[in-house]
Amino acid sequence: MSHYNPLIERALEGNMLALGRLARIIDDGEDGAGEIIRSIYRRAGRAHVVGITGPPGAGKSTLVNGLVRRCRKEGRKVAVLAVDPTSPYSGGAVLGDRIRMQEHATDPGVFIRSLATRGHMGGLSRSAMPLTILLDAVGHDLIFLETVGVGQEEVEVKDLAHTKVFVTVPGLGDGIQAMKAGVLEIADILLVNKADLPRADLTVRDLETMVKMAEGDRGWTPPVLTSVASEDVGLAEVMSSLTDHYRFLLDSDFLHAWSLSTAEAAVREAMRGAAEAGIMDLLERERAAFAEDVGKVSLREEDPITVARRWLAKLGLRDD
Amino acid sequence: MSHYNPLIERALEGNMLALGRLARIIDDGEDGAGEIIRSIYRRAGRAHVVGITGPPGAGKSTLVNGLVRRCRKEGRKVAVLAVDPTSPYSGGAVLGDRIRMQEHATDPGVFIRSLATRGHMGGLSRSAMPLTILLDAVGHDLIFLETVGVGQEEVEVKDLAHTKVFVTVPGLGDGIQAMKAGVLEIADILLVNKADLPRADLTVRDLETMVKMAEGDRGWTPPVLTSVASEDVGLAEVMSSLTDHYRFLLDSDFLHAWSLSTAEAAVREAMRGAAEAGIMDLLERERAAFAEDVGKVSLREEDPITVARRWLAKLGLRDD
Repeated sequence: MSHYNPLIERALEGNMLALGRLARIIDDGEDGAGEIIRSIYRRAGRAHVVGITGPPGAGKSTLVNGLVRRCRKEGRKVAVLAVDPTSPYSGGAVLGDRIRMQEHATDPGVFIRSLATRGHMGGLSRSAMPLTILLDAVGHDLIFLETVGVGQEEVEVKDLAHTKVFVTVPGLGDGIQAMKAGVLEIADILLVNKADLPRADLTVRDLETMVKMAEGDRGWTPPVLTSVASEDVGLAEVMSSLTDHYRFLLDSDFLHAWSLSTAEAAVREAMRGAAEAGIMDLLERERAAFAEDVGKVSLREEDPITVARRWLAKLGLRDD
Repeated sequence: MSHYNPLIERALEGNMLALGRLARIIDDGEDGAGEIIRSIYRRAGRAHVVGITGPPGAGKSTLVNGLVRRCRKEGRKVAVLAVDPTSPYSGGAVLGDRIRMQEHATDPGVFIRSLATRGHMGGLSRSAMPLTILLDAVGHDLIFLETVGVGQEEVEVKDLAHTKVFVTVPGLGDGIQAMKAGVLEIADILLVNKADLPRADLTVRDLETMVKMAEGDRGWTPPVLTSVASEDVGLAEVMSSLTDHYRFLLDSDFLHAWSLSTAEAAVREAMRGAAEAGIMDLLERERAAFAEDVGKVSLREEDPITVARRWLAKLGLRDD
């Protein structure tokens, strides 16, 4: 039993303020986060989690905005988590973007949240996982994870999202540049946004060629779609492709496999998070002593490895 | 005393094979990494570390290639660490890029290395720090860290690089998109590459305006430069700007401040790395038992937090 239960009850009833408070507790990495997840974890598992990944300038936020609008017309509850520092949701927006994002700000069926970074020991991934669990548990039908990045470093999106959409634009290093490094292996849908720009057809053809070359035994061939998200062009096709892919997962063994790898990622993430929190707390508590040791490293009187081991030992972590 | 000393001796004498082996040991995260760093740490501190950051397609690799060529003409030893999954150095290149990169492949005065990612518990940052220390210690004059990303998530570059160059191109979301989210606060040089593209002047003007607005008490105003790296245009100016900035750091207190924050980051990184390595080793050793617990989380019989705590306790990590 958690003393967050009254808050959780209200969030389950659809109270957005309560949900916002729970999300803030999780995002702040307070001790409560663990308690909340423990209380709600069994309720999760029904949302369709969609990753929207692509380089800055690809128009991901406009796309998400348009997709959210479509979901709302169908009466589906939607959440957006922006793990992209260039996203207007994350506070990196120019004014125009911000105003555009206001469209859904007062809609109780839309929950929007940006994930804070928390300095060197933090990172984006720590709260993405528990927040997705929370949003899933309180009954969102779709959860969009908007993220910059080009594949490898976005492991958390790969772990969390059922359906990974990779968005690119014509002319960005011939459309291929952004598709390097394993993106193809994890993308379920490829989208050329801003398809009214010159040479969009070339980018589409490049991607189609790459999809053909990469074809494996996934049982799913990523479609290459086009859109002009700012004018709501092509988004119906994106929505139905999202549904197709989720149905494919439900009909196959892949959803189970995905769920096992997500479970493993969740446990590892929780372990890492707890270990890092322990380190941060310790260094915070003994700040002066730590600063003294850092000074020695700075003057090269000691090396960082030796100092790190000494401090880890204080934490009780066994050093083999 | 480390049994890596013979290898270290040879690397210090300029043996590239020995250096390569040390780098591989560090990059693989073997236990030897700590030993190596302990042995060489006191020799480091003389290299000028330059971060080259910008979105995919900005031409960072071509730029680095050109800058390396210039350094070599001056007889300076150079290293390149690519922490960018889209970089040709990192293996994400299309064929043309790879061939272009061969230019320096046989030059013993140039060390090139891409940093591997290592699944969920790894990450780019873990080896960037120790590799930079190694390359510094064996006498490289300049170390280029090539990295994608738009600021916040590239904390390690901020910690490691003396001089942060942010590269953008005309027309990428009006040149502003990519400059969001704190890049301006950490960039020391702003570079508009592919400046022969249309509207380059607008991008330059935008950046100059933003620099003016952001002007603080750093004592250094980031210059806005232009280049066409593929044609070696503007690179002399970039080089002299790099030198200017390093001289500025040497003449001011900033180099000391930077060095303290780097030392702190190095210790924290080493702690985090050791904690994660401990977790990984444990889960590897008791793989079957862990898989069983993951299965329970997958079936929602248990939640990830409870399971994570149980496994952390095995590691000896105190749970407050």
